[in-house]
Amino acid sequence: MQGKAGTQEKDMQICQTVSQLRAVLAPLRAAGKRIGFVPTMGALHEGHISLARTLREHCDVRVCSIFVNPTQFNDPKDYQAYQVNLERDSEMLRAQGVDVLFSPTVEQIYPPGFQTIVRVTEISKPFEGALRPGHFEGVATVVTILFNAVSPHVAIFGEKDFQQLCLIERMVQDLALDIRIIRGALVRDSDGLALSSRNARLSAAGREDALYISRGLFAAKEAFISGERSSEALEQIVRSYIEKMKDPQVDYIALVDEKNLKRVATAQADTRILVVARVDGVRLLDNIGL
Amino acid sequence: MQGKAGTQEKDMQICQTVSQLRAVLAPLRAAGKRIGFVPTMGALHEGHISLARTLREHCDVRVCSIFVNPTQFNDPKDYQAYQVNLERDSEMLRAQGVDVLFSPTVEQIYPPGFQTIVRVTEISKPFEGALRPGHFEGVATVVTILFNAVSPHVAIFGEKDFQQLCLIERMVQDLALDIRIIRGALVRDSDGLALSSRNARLSAAGREDALYISRGLFAAKEAFISGERSSEALEQIVRSYIEKMKDPQVDYIALVDEKNLKRVATAQADTRILVVARVDGVRLLDNIGL
Repeated sequence: MQGKAGTQEKDMQICQTVSQLRAVLAPLRAAGKRIGFVPTMGALHEGHISLARTLREHCDVRVCSIFVNPTQFNDPKDYQAYQVNLERDSEMLRAQGVDVLFSPTVEQIYPPGFQTIVRVTEISKPFEGALRPGHFEGVATVVTILFNAVSPHVAIFGEKDFQQLCLIERMVQDLALDIRIIRGALVRDSDGLALSSRNARLSAAGREDALYISRGLFAAKEAFISGERSSEALEQIVRSYIEKMKDPQVDYIALVDEKNLKRVATAQADTRILVVARVDGVRLLDNIGL
Repeated sequence: MQGKAGTQEKDMQICQTVSQLRAVLAPLRAAGKRIGFVPTMGALHEGHISLARTLREHCDVRVCSIFVNPTQFNDPKDYQAYQVNLERDSEMLRAQGVDVLFSPTVEQIYPPGFQTIVRVTEISKPFEGALRPGHFEGVATVVTILFNAVSPHVAIFGEKDFQQLCLIERMVQDLALDIRIIRGALVRDSDGLALSSRNARLSAAGREDALYISRGLFAAKEAFISGERSSEALEQIVRSYIEKMKDPQVDYIALVDEKNLKRVATAQADTRILVVARVDGVRLLDNIGL
């Protein structure tokens, strides 16, 4: 197959239906190729690209999906406002050598009469689950559908959405899905801000304020390294940084077990600090492992 | 591999864990064999055997599971009382030439910390769903797990549990599972009684009474063939037979669309009559297509 520029490199294949996708992947699977999968909602940034890059070490064929899933928006207005430039996103994936792009329509994923839901009960309850009713049910359901459409050997999810990552790991284990889940590192801008498609909605002043979130996490991690083990004390360090913002609005700061997302009183190496704060009305998620 | 009797026939392989099962199936799958699957809860009778026999035409390798799923019993006492003789059941499957028996423990299917559920919302609501809270959530969840463990190309479910069959078909479509579902015909005893492991709990007199259920269904079908199209009239024919029992107890009689299980006012070729009546305290399910 010839690429657009007439080179020998094969071009990225774009599939819009599950049957197209299966037709493309079946011969590769039969030839013993390992299929890797990066699900996204588009609006790609370096965080997503880093996932695609990390995945390359774990498989032979990389499939990326772009699907803005309506069922995981708890506020329909957010769904309407969510901007995806499919052409720009495709170019970014093509430049990374991604082999297959799956970009289905809403009707393809949710056919008429659709009525099946997947729920991971405990992990969905706190934090984002408590603040965004229905969100994680939407995530678990769409990821199950995408997994069944792609049937990957391995899939990667970013640590940026840490609760989502834990939920997917639990779901894969519980439903006996034969898929290895890889944790993709959170990517930060040079100033420390965790990359997110939401960052584009920050004002210049808001962006300055937002930096207190990562600074607070870095300071807490340093305190942990210096011997501080009290979750309460470490949480207070993060809070003290966020309180330097002009209008500090914290949704939560929590020290949790990295596997089951349960709060811990004493910090350990497998503890993670989760933070969500609002700046310019934008919910910014960040976290750090200790 | 040699069979027990030293013949060239290969013996049925028995797997108790998902990883054993995958190890057995992987080379067959890689060799291009089509995998077929019959999930059961044991206590096998000719109805199950007929499913295994029908499946033979649709695949190269037949996998049967025996797993008494605790989560689909709405009454824990029923679960405790449910009798399975694994040795007897295995013999029946071996005699049918089934290739692989998957008989996992409860801990294998529901590992510690298990918390994921699958729900098919609309089809689960009426009839058995209304009378057995949680039953269909248990069914949808365990079947998803078993499907992921076996990864069959084709699976068969009996028309005896007609609502369950519709639920599985809907779930497979909604979750984009790459599995063809085959409807296995309901099997009756020579006197007309639909086969069920529950029939063993009927007294001699109860068994006589139970025959009014199938007689009512046959009479309604004859009336349909003779031109009767009113669901109400056809339902009344079934009821009039059941009322001949000593102590008639009808849970429901309903004429429904065979695809979505919605009630219809006018009977058509794709209408099915569902009946549940209780005899000797045993809930007997039956149905017939028109």
